[in-house]
Amino acid sequence: MDGLSRKIYLELAAPTKEDAASSQERILRALKADYGEVRMPCRILRMLYPLCEEADWKVTVTLAWDGRGWEIMNLEAGDVSARHYGVCADLGSTTVVLQLVDCETGRVLASTSSYNRQTAYGADILTRIFYTKDHPEHLEELRKATVENFLDAFAELKEKSGIGPESYASMVVSGNMTMVHFLIGMDPFCIFSAPYAVQADHPDFIPASQLGFPFHGYVYCYPGRANYLGGDIVSGAVATGIARSEEICIFLDIGTNGELVVGNREFLLCGAGAAGPALEGGSVKTGMCARDGAVQHIRLDGEAFQADVIGGGKAEGICGSGIVDLIAELFLHGWVDIRGRFVPEASGKIVERDGEYAVEYAPSLYFYQCDLDEFLSTKAAAATMVEYMMNLIGLTMQDVGKFQVAGAFGAYIDKEAAVTIGMYPDLERSRLISAGNTSLKGAYEMLLHKDCLEQVQDILSRMEYVQFGEVEDFIHLMGAARAVPHTDLGRYPTVVEKLRKNGIHGF
Amino acid sequence: MDGLSRKIYLELAAPTKEDAASSQERILRALKADYGEVRMPCRILRMLYPLCEEADWKVTVTLAWDGRGWEIMNLEAGDVSARHYGVCADLGSTTVVLQLVDCETGRVLASTSSYNRQTAYGADILTRIFYTKDHPEHLEELRKATVENFLDAFAELKEKSGIGPESYASMVVSGNMTMVHFLIGMDPFCIFSAPYAVQADHPDFIPASQLGFPFHGYVYCYPGRANYLGGDIVSGAVATGIARSEEICIFLDIGTNGELVVGNREFLLCGAGAAGPALEGGSVKTGMCARDGAVQHIRLDGEAFQADVIGGGKAEGICGSGIVDLIAELFLHGWVDIRGRFVPEASGKIVERDGEYAVEYAPSLYFYQCDLDEFLSTKAAAATMVEYMMNLIGLTMQDVGKFQVAGAFGAYIDKEAAVTIGMYPDLERSRLISAGNTSLKGAYEMLLHKDCLEQVQDILSRMEYVQFGEVEDFIHLMGAARAVPHTDLGRYPTVVEKLRKNGIHGF
Repeated sequence: MDGLSRKIYLELAAPTKEDAASSQERILRALKADYGEVRMPCRILRMLYPLCEEADWKVTVTLAWDGRGWEIMNLEAGDVSARHYGVCADLGSTTVVLQLVDCETGRVLASTSSYNRQTAYGADILTRIFYTKDHPEHLEELRKATVENFLDAFAELKEKSGIGPESYASMVVSGNMTMVHFLIGMDPFCIFSAPYAVQADHPDFIPASQLGFPFHGYVYCYPGRANYLGGDIVSGAVATGIARSEEICIFLDIGTNGELVVGNREFLLCGAGAAGPALEGGSVKTGMCARDGAVQHIRLDGEAFQADVIGGGKAEGICGSGIVDLIAELFLHGWVDIRGRFVPEASGKIVERDGEYAVEYAPSLYFYQCDLDEFLSTKAAAATMVEYMMNLIGLTMQDVGKFQVAGAFGAYIDKEAAVTIGMYPDLERSRLISAGNTSLKGAYEMLLHKDCLEQVQDILSRMEYVQFGEVEDFIHLMGAARAVPHTDLGRYPTVVEKLRKNGIHGF
Repeated sequence: MDGLSRKIYLELAAPTKEDAASSQERILRALKADYGEVRMPCRILRMLYPLCEEADWKVTVTLAWDGRGWEIMNLEAGDVSARHYGVCADLGSTTVVLQLVDCETGRVLASTSSYNRQTAYGADILTRIFYTKDHPEHLEELRKATVENFLDAFAELKEKSGIGPESYASMVVSGNMTMVHFLIGMDPFCIFSAPYAVQADHPDFIPASQLGFPFHGYVYCYPGRANYLGGDIVSGAVATGIARSEEICIFLDIGTNGELVVGNREFLLCGAGAAGPALEGGSVKTGMCARDGAVQHIRLDGEAFQADVIGGGKAEGICGSGIVDLIAELFLHGWVDIRGRFVPEASGKIVERDGEYAVEYAPSLYFYQCDLDEFLSTKAAAATMVEYMMNLIGLTMQDVGKFQVAGAFGAYIDKEAAVTIGMYPDLERSRLISAGNTSLKGAYEMLLHKDCLEQVQDILSRMEYVQFGEVEDFIHLMGAARAVPHTDLGRYPTVVEKLRKNGIHGF
């Protein structure tokens, strides 16, 4: 591993009359060839004696990269170079995920996931931002909540592994612009207000103590590209390898907001837009997030719905992946047409309720026309971001090597269903990749591979930001993408094939 | 000034839709051309808003050099670039001297000088070292005493100038190896114990907070060359310009110990030896340091002594410069011979007291043969260090361009008298230079001229250390140097001339 920290065992010669170099110099010159001019802070200078003598000049030094060079973070007797730990974190606005990593082997020793404590100040980011705007004392509350979130996570990691933060040699945090502003304690209102110039977008290497973390070492905070394209996406770009890829890749991180990177080692375009909460189960009348009681998958078998409920109990609502399945099934059975409208003559199960059509997908749980409208708008927004970018560079989906979808949504969604409703392009299925928590993965990669720093520089310098909100064409494209799967059916041959097989009228 | 800190006034453009770069980036890119990749710590990131906006994007940044690059230490509204202050310090084992410097003009705004608080743990360094040896809690006492010394000095500088430590942009400290060990909190026993490998000899740039100093910024601590050749001498070498000189220079810092650097831009030799306390008035029965009541200069007018007493009152003893004068006068009047022995037949004022000869140089104050012996041994040690080095490189005193003597002793001593007793070489008088507090001057130079860092690297890499204690020849040379001025009178033509003029027998 060639990460942001190193543990190096040194067998030094004891001082003699002939070589009376200082203890400091004995250590630094042993490191010089591989690590250049290494910095030794006061704390370590104070540890030199009697540690070096008592250890018979066999010592292990911990080095951390400070952004410009290496600094000694710890000095221990004997060879303890195998005890080398670091932490990577995805600071999400809803969930904070940490991994304790063995930096010698790359093994994840323990993980934690917790609700972001900031949610106490607002479930959505904007509420938190308005709470802190021009109230430094409120901002400080949010900052502290964020830090405490990490402190609790450190404690949990210690409980699980026996390794506490005092043993961390370095840490990498990946989060969106707002999360990084809260972590550092910067007013984030600027992120959502014209001209969208944030306070700081590349905090880079921060001494852990400056953030309030109880270890010696640096915290690398992934830099962001723009207000809505934060460190989480840059981290994701590193994790997916998009910037080094020969074939063209699409990297889509979709949740309340959608962020998109399209490119390869020759070009990189990026953009972000509001996808709407529908994808996470919000805005849908019986929508809920993916927890016990949520329908996560559903099949329509003849006239009967077969729901797969998280936890196995009674269905209480439906989450994103369930909605995608449901719409796909309704469409493939002809219950919903290409315009996204219920076809009441297709089934007696399509009933009228509260003045609109609906189906009862689980006992007493209805999916309404307005739910369909809401969700299809959202999928249209996401699909159009991708399409718009492809048009911009004069390519079609057939030119895409990999279509990578980040996040929990990407992980749980059924690929076939997502293609059916036109959310994913109709590509060879092996090219449709659920990339997982790319924000966390990028943090992990950085922790273990210092050369990711150059990749970040490359990504930031090449990434061209496309403002979708500004684009007139966008609205027209989105209209076409509102259809199921799309007005241009030629793009979805496998879907047409299925419809034909199902004998749906008109195909 | 191109010192270790800078204050730069920036007129930035406010963010616009076209240029929505972050506040951080707006500042960093304005600095990039002149200062490269500047680091902005958390504390400054938190200050960006609302400061930049409220200041209409007209701000002053304070930069400090951290040893590898520039770091922003402060951010202020408007143009306050003229309010730019730093501190330089000579951390002497007896006296601690500080200067508050206007880093824009180089003007010294205030100075302080105080007894080193460590003296409470021993007037001489060795007592302090034995007190702390393997007693970390005692070492911590000494460290704290040293820090408090500085805190008091900061307070005094504030009282005198209105400028407190919170306004310091950087600080340079020069001190010998033991002083630096105490300042940082490192056990200094190693300095005086074989094989003389110290803990650390190049602490370089230390964040002020790590030392316990109340300002943001770095403290540059001059590196040392060897156990007895510490940062104060390297600083002195910078101050005297010896390493850049075309002509050969001798730089002598003499006190309880004597340190010597001989060289020019082509070579540098250095060495150190115990000079003995005689030069500071110790070991001489009526000796005292240079304070009120001390005879600082003295003339022999016929048979009568004319003493110049510090403070103008009654003479209570004699300090170093007085002793040099006294011996020179006794010798020039034939009362003391070339072997350094009283010549009782030369004057009735030479009396026998307590079994040895003595003269009453002031009412009831006697200077004894044993005082003479003691002092001449000391001057012989100092003169021999110089001679030994000149022999080593095959040069004579006539090849020397400048003979620079540091310290209070160098400042108050009468050049003519020093030549007469053979303490200084018999060079053209303009070449004998009282260099003053070179340790402090080197610290001042570093504070205002960052390129002194390269000079320090050059000095450290070229300085060859000569161990006098090891040299057999040394003892023989010292015998010759015990004479007044020297057994080889050919080296002292102006002294012989004076003796002839005075009609002293044998010349």
